[in-house]
Amino acid sequence: MTASSASPYQRLHVELDARRYPIHVGPGLLDTPDMLVPYLAGRQVMIVTNETVAPLYLERLKRTLSGDDRDVREVILPDGEHTKTLASVERIWDALLAAGFNRRCTLVALGGGVIGDMAGYAAACYQRGVAFVQVPTTLLSQVDSSVGGKTGVNHPRGKNMIGAFWQPRAVLIDTDTLATLPGRELAAGLAEVIKYGLIQDAGFLAWLEARMSSLRGLDVEALTDAILRSCAIKAEIVARDETEQGQRALLNLGHTFGHAIEAHQGYGNWLHGEAVGAGMLMAATLSQRLGWLSSEDMARVETLVASAGLPVTVPAAMSADDFLAAMRLDKKNIDGRLRLVLLSGLGEACVYDDTPPDMLKALLDEFPRA
Amino acid sequence: MTASSASPYQRLHVELDARRYPIHVGPGLLDTPDMLVPYLAGRQVMIVTNETVAPLYLERLKRTLSGDDRDVREVILPDGEHTKTLASVERIWDALLAAGFNRRCTLVALGGGVIGDMAGYAAACYQRGVAFVQVPTTLLSQVDSSVGGKTGVNHPRGKNMIGAFWQPRAVLIDTDTLATLPGRELAAGLAEVIKYGLIQDAGFLAWLEARMSSLRGLDVEALTDAILRSCAIKAEIVARDETEQGQRALLNLGHTFGHAIEAHQGYGNWLHGEAVGAGMLMAATLSQRLGWLSSEDMARVETLVASAGLPVTVPAAMSADDFLAAMRLDKKNIDGRLRLVLLSGLGEACVYDDTPPDMLKALLDEFPRA
Repeated sequence: MTASSASPYQRLHVELDARRYPIHVGPGLLDTPDMLVPYLAGRQVMIVTNETVAPLYLERLKRTLSGDDRDVREVILPDGEHTKTLASVERIWDALLAAGFNRRCTLVALGGGVIGDMAGYAAACYQRGVAFVQVPTTLLSQVDSSVGGKTGVNHPRGKNMIGAFWQPRAVLIDTDTLATLPGRELAAGLAEVIKYGLIQDAGFLAWLEARMSSLRGLDVEALTDAILRSCAIKAEIVARDETEQGQRALLNLGHTFGHAIEAHQGYGNWLHGEAVGAGMLMAATLSQRLGWLSSEDMARVETLVASAGLPVTVPAAMSADDFLAAMRLDKKNIDGRLRLVLLSGLGEACVYDDTPPDMLKALLDEFPRA
Repeated sequence: MTASSASPYQRLHVELDARRYPIHVGPGLLDTPDMLVPYLAGRQVMIVTNETVAPLYLERLKRTLSGDDRDVREVILPDGEHTKTLASVERIWDALLAAGFNRRCTLVALGGGVIGDMAGYAAACYQRGVAFVQVPTTLLSQVDSSVGGKTGVNHPRGKNMIGAFWQPRAVLIDTDTLATLPGRELAAGLAEVIKYGLIQDAGFLAWLEARMSSLRGLDVEALTDAILRSCAIKAEIVARDETEQGQRALLNLGHTFGHAIEAHQGYGNWLHGEAVGAGMLMAATLSQRLGWLSSEDMARVETLVASAGLPVTVPAAMSADDFLAAMRLDKKNIDGRLRLVLLSGLGEACVYDDTPPDMLKALLDEFPRA
């Protein structure tokens, strides 16, 4: 990761050799052709967005991308995690083929994580791979799904089960888009921001404790700093382990529990970030029971998650067995052995496959319900 | 490409750095655990095959792969190019998820090119990528689709439009399987064998002219030599250009015309190799009209294609416009410009994007129909 302030925008790079790409962060990017056009592969451009985001930003982005004989089109999908299916990706492929687009075309994802994951997967597999640019418009997608090249869709039996690693040519984060973000979506994004502090950076965690009310109040400077620090941590981890052979798994703190909640509740009823928020508390509690976190540490985690407006309980309808059934399908597991990301301290995480089954069962039985 | 004769089997390697993999060629490989088991990623194994091949080889392969607590399962799909769809790949994903298979599982493709392409694509995208082994049972898949990592499915609007580059861990070519191959499928495979001579190796072309009757008579020694030479040529080209930025496109000699025939006739009514056979004649004829092949060269190409039992005419129902409409969607085209693989001589090919439109139209109008 390298940082620069030579341009009016903040910038960092995800270092992946031939697939190295920049992340630009700042106001007004959506209206700045110089920040977008250089990343297009050819004159064919397909913007992928959804029914919520399109009325807000689609025409502006089209205007910015047009000119020079470019053929700019769009696919507008329904909104929500429940639409993150292969059928939606097929609509993107159908649109590309109906337009006669070739392998020099570029897909531009305009929206949150669901749009980015689907557009990225569509780009990864259209004619065996075409160019892809991310324009994430939610805090969660800005700090999480737009960095690292994970793309894909859900399957009725599990989240993100079908997908590919496919890196964007660039990520453009226009901080103006956060002004229209609903509070619940903001909190969901903050869950991932908190995660970066918990797994890797105790200093950032303390900064978040001090700035949480500014962040929730949409203070642009605080949000820009939080986005840059989050992307920098993720970019550094991804550069070291692109295809999740080792350290990248730490980014899944709270996700094994969280995915179980999402799957049980039906995708989209809990936001991904909300489920991760509760899931991080479960992981922290287990870490405390293993003797790795003090009760003071645990109290700080609980307070921070609550102050972000995230759930601190799990659904009353979910039994321990519901959790275990979903957790057994987690992609981190190896040959049937459950692997969890836990906290070895505040700002330090590890992958652990030796949790005593009784301790896990007790946690799942006893964790507060609502 | 490196060759070795230290084992009872012939072997060469496709050189792709970290994704380097071996191709083993010889009799009895299907029954030899030592040639297969080392390439499995873990204890979960899913064999993907079809209703034609399963009765012939599935039980033998399962026996060979079993043992050591391995969980060996199968998906049996219908046979034929018309089944090469995303819906078939979804059946593979459903089976993997129903079995609870994780990212340490291995997909083994047992069958021809359609099975290999679909199993490879399923492996590329299951949990963002799992291990994959090819056991090709047709001449065409042995010399073509099992080398190079192209995987994918057809779309109603075009062949192989959805897919990924995904390399196998190994390719096991059991030459015994050719004994059960129908004559029409053998001829289809010979089309690709002839292609390697035409694009890269005039000496191999002369060898094929001398050995065509042995090859059609299923002479195992001649077939083994033809397979090894074909795989070696393809492996060398793929190693230099894995994702088809340049030279790899030469492997598409005859394919732009051929794909148009396949799409027009409905996938599977013409075999892929048959369409490539006629397509190579069209490409050669255009090369002759451009002044690059002599009439003697052209006569040799025609005689060789006919002696392999391949079609030398195109469907009567196809107009020049039918060809052009399909050819416009070819993946080689850049920003709307038609690019064709042509012969600059016998044993020498090039990608050409400057064919005079009138000359192409005349060829398409005048080429013999049947």
